[in-house]
Amino acid sequence: MRGTVLHGPRDIRFEGRQTPKIVKPTDAVIRVAVTCVCGSDLWPYRGVAPINEPAPMGHEYCGMVEEVGSAVHSVKPGQFVVGSFATSDNTCPHCQYGYQSSCMQREFMTGAQAPVLRVPHADGTLVPTLGIPPADLLPSLLTISDVLGTGWFAADAAGVKPGSTVAVVGDGAVGLLGVLSAKQKGAGRIIAMSRHEARQKLAREFGATDIVAERGDEGVARIRDLTKGVGADAVLECVGTQESMWQAIRATRPGGGVGYVGVPHGVALDGQQLFFTHVRLHGGPAPVRRYLPELIDLVWSRKIDPGKVFDLTLPLDQVADGYRAMDERRAIKTLLRP
Amino acid sequence: MRGTVLHGPRDIRFEGRQTPKIVKPTDAVIRVAVTCVCGSDLWPYRGVAPINEPAPMGHEYCGMVEEVGSAVHSVKPGQFVVGSFATSDNTCPHCQYGYQSSCMQREFMTGAQAPVLRVPHADGTLVPTLGIPPADLLPSLLTISDVLGTGWFAADAAGVKPGSTVAVVGDGAVGLLGVLSAKQKGAGRIIAMSRHEARQKLAREFGATDIVAERGDEGVARIRDLTKGVGADAVLECVGTQESMWQAIRATRPGGGVGYVGVPHGVALDGQQLFFTHVRLHGGPAPVRRYLPELIDLVWSRKIDPGKVFDLTLPLDQVADGYRAMDERRAIKTLLRP
Repeated sequence: MRGTVLHGPRDIRFEGRQTPKIVKPTDAVIRVAVTCVCGSDLWPYRGVAPINEPAPMGHEYCGMVEEVGSAVHSVKPGQFVVGSFATSDNTCPHCQYGYQSSCMQREFMTGAQAPVLRVPHADGTLVPTLGIPPADLLPSLLTISDVLGTGWFAADAAGVKPGSTVAVVGDGAVGLLGVLSAKQKGAGRIIAMSRHEARQKLAREFGATDIVAERGDEGVARIRDLTKGVGADAVLECVGTQESMWQAIRATRPGGGVGYVGVPHGVALDGQQLFFTHVRLHGGPAPVRRYLPELIDLVWSRKIDPGKVFDLTLPLDQVADGYRAMDERRAIKTLLRP
Repeated sequence: MRGTVLHGPRDIRFEGRQTPKIVKPTDAVIRVAVTCVCGSDLWPYRGVAPINEPAPMGHEYCGMVEEVGSAVHSVKPGQFVVGSFATSDNTCPHCQYGYQSSCMQREFMTGAQAPVLRVPHADGTLVPTLGIPPADLLPSLLTISDVLGTGWFAADAAGVKPGSTVAVVGDGAVGLLGVLSAKQKGAGRIIAMSRHEARQKLAREFGATDIVAERGDEGVARIRDLTKGVGADAVLECVGTQESMWQAIRATRPGGGVGYVGVPHGVALDGQQLFFTHVRLHGGPAPVRRYLPELIDLVWSRKIDPGKVFDLTLPLDQVADGYRAMDERRAIKTLLRP
């Protein structure tokens, strides 16, 4: 088969790779229905996170099970499944505690921007849908695998409750689905921080009540203005830079929470400064597996439509164009069809 | 009157100062029954936190109200009161949210190592006891003002619940009262990290079930051993150094919480490292005012005896000896009697 491989900064190739097959009895092999490019793929693409050798790319996926190993019991060939970007056995103490993305047997998925994918720990990683989904649900089901699950975790980690005043830092796909997640969790007010018109519009569709275009000190001042000097109850940090992290922390009220899900790059937190903010901090790789049943149900019953974050759809063999469009911020998120 | 003044590193003097009086209508003046030296007093004492001019010292106090300003209604002369080291109006949004130590009108108390003390925002800062306390309750009532309230917040911020496995980093007075607090909150197992015999003994009296003498990497490894490789559900960080902070974070299970109350000095947290630990972080100056009624009740009814942390009692005019004993770790905590 041919799959997506990163060879160096901005050097994405769609090229011949061995077709994945069952390696361990706990594996499944799935035929990928749709896949996509993640904001976190841009870190190695831009050379910010260096790679040592050609790297198969992609960790967001859903599709049809083709084959399972002899030890797999909860999914079977012919079923349609959604899985997490992090594998989990779903039985270890960390999984039982709801942190499947810190599973003692965790592997980070890779190679999903391809027509066929091997998924380790299939029993603990994949969840089947009720049946074969109609084609128009595929984009939304795909988002659950990472980008929606991550926005959902941001809202969860920040402690969003019914009635909460929420701010979202970052208007990428995760931030936008953080808005959707906050709305689902009953937030009373959702302030999206964005300076891009198309993204502002989508944020409003997902439930944002206010838009703040300012950043940094001015952005924080605007959030304080909007909250009568108090700060937001919960802030979702969906970028991962030093500026965005402090913007999130400083926009939060004392005792409020920041859920940070943008993989931090070059972020250093001064302990004493953080101490006096009184802010709760929680984040990390989203435990998507914990949320899969609930999120699949919300999509299946058409209560949410997170697939709207895809504003560019390409055939998989044009994946390099998909990266480029996101790198240049011409696209929010690129859907790829094998 | 004479009071305690820090003139420079290790230069504590008990010297003539103006006797405090009512300045604002929201003030109270109290006659201090007992006061003490705080671990955080040692930072400026050691010159780690520089001072610009001679500084009146002390922020832990309880005593009899002598006089109140015209706007004070909730306490009156003749009442015995306990107050927080941070003043609060107890009505602003931050106070209402339970974070009185981030009150919009907050002042950090100072000058309490003296026979007479002015307390701003008396209505929102002081809580009267049911009557004049018997002499033997004074040390325990005094601890509520900061050191017990701070250990309590550490346990609260770390998310200690009935049955939790808890680790406490730091065997100073705050850490020891963190052990007591975790016990009160129903912790199933409490691992105190201490290498000092007297402190280990007190930790056990307060409820510690296990003692770990190792520090750093070895200390973390011991906690992991004791928890079958999982880590503690909740860790109380009661020191404030880079080493202790990371020791706390690394001893915590993914999804578990660190409550950090040692004022951080030279602590820098790498965002990406923190991200992958999945640890919840919450801390800051303890909102003692929130806990005052509950803690006064626990002491008054003799359900807890936090006053045991005082292992040195001196007349107030020997305050310099009290600092020296704590600086040299000969004393856990020094009680001072005016």
